[in-house]
Amino acid sequence: MNQPVDNVPSARSELRRQQILDAATDCFRRCGFHGASISQISKAAGMSAGHIYHFFDNKEAIIAAIVERNVAYSLALIKRFEDQADVFEAIVEKIGQALQEHTDREFVCLWLEVLAEAARNPEMAQIVQAADQKMRQRVTCLENAARQARGIRSDIKPEAVAEVTMALFEGLGNRIIQNPGMNKAEVAKVLRIAAQAILQA
Amino acid sequence: MNQPVDNVPSARSELRRQQILDAATDCFRRCGFHGASISQISKAAGMSAGHIYHFFDNKEAIIAAIVERNVAYSLALIKRFEDQADVFEAIVEKIGQALQEHTDREFVCLWLEVLAEAARNPEMAQIVQAADQKMRQRVTCLENAARQARGIRSDIKPEAVAEVTMALFEGLGNRIIQNPGMNKAEVAKVLRIAAQAILQA
Repeated sequence: MNQPVDNVPSARSELRRQQILDAATDCFRRCGFHGASISQISKAAGMSAGHIYHFFDNKEAIIAAIVERNVAYSLALIKRFEDQADVFEAIVEKIGQALQEHTDREFVCLWLEVLAEAARNPEMAQIVQAADQKMRQRVTCLENAARQARGIRSDIKPEAVAEVTMALFEGLGNRIIQNPGMNKAEVAKVLRIAAQAILQA
Repeated sequence: MNQPVDNVPSARSELRRQQILDAATDCFRRCGFHGASISQISKAAGMSAGHIYHFFDNKEAIIAAIVERNVAYSLALIKRFEDQADVFEAIVEKIGQALQEHTDREFVCLWLEVLAEAARNPEMAQIVQAADQKMRQRVTCLENAARQARGIRSDIKPEAVAEVTMALFEGLGNRIIQNPGMNKAEVAKVLRIAAQAILQA
């Protein structure tokens, strides 16, 4: 019944692409962006270097795809909030979960490597900034809707509210590297208060 | 009048040491921790590699000294707050300045490189975690004193207050890489509200 007949090769191709991204994520995390070579990534992905180049021109293109995949994942999380009746309440309620996600060591290792490289490599900076613009706009809209639903009126710019929220969660990722013994249950209590204050600013 | 007679060579030696740290800071920022070699650092510092090894065993030791120097600088800033009559007010008042310092691109570039390396190199992790413990204790004491002076009593742990404050400012450093056009004046307004809420948690 209207089943697309040629979806098999494309699904397979997408699977291959995802396998490369998984292998590259692992290599970048372990060896850094410069330390990881295409030949190493191809070994980790279990396919030839030629096969990798069929999908990606270079390491930058792989990083761009990894960043894009992260954005897609984050936007899907935001979508879940958008679907809630009381967005404001939902955000505050999910603080503990957001804390867990943002302090996931594997994610933080990769993200710090991407940011460190973006700080000195203009091509990477462009990738990261384009992805951030998408995220920032979506967070701004979400928070703005939550504020409006609560009748919050102030001269605070919604973009600044989004910026500080994002800083708070990204910073927690940096913190887990410096303080692996972080008491997450206690931190979540303070975070909840901070998030409420930021949203109501 | 009791002038130490042998302070000249030691002052000179300290100057050399600082020159090496400045040169290394610059090299790590431009090329990353792995990309920067001792020979490159010696060239940038205008002295021989042998001279560098006289002061530091390896690159890790140089990074440790750079981190130590950053901590000393930050502790001196905290000291200024400790000397204020109303610590709480002083913290909130200096938000704009703290934002500028934490979003200084040169500082952020180096710091992201240090953290990315600490995320995968246990020796570096130890350096960063030991430095952080000092900072965290001092921030905890400062904020706790500010809270007590205001008569704030709650079941919130002072360590968690410090953790969230530090996350907020470190996160702003990450943000400047992703959003170089950040509107700092608007962000400072939200930050002030967030910092007040965190301190009063």
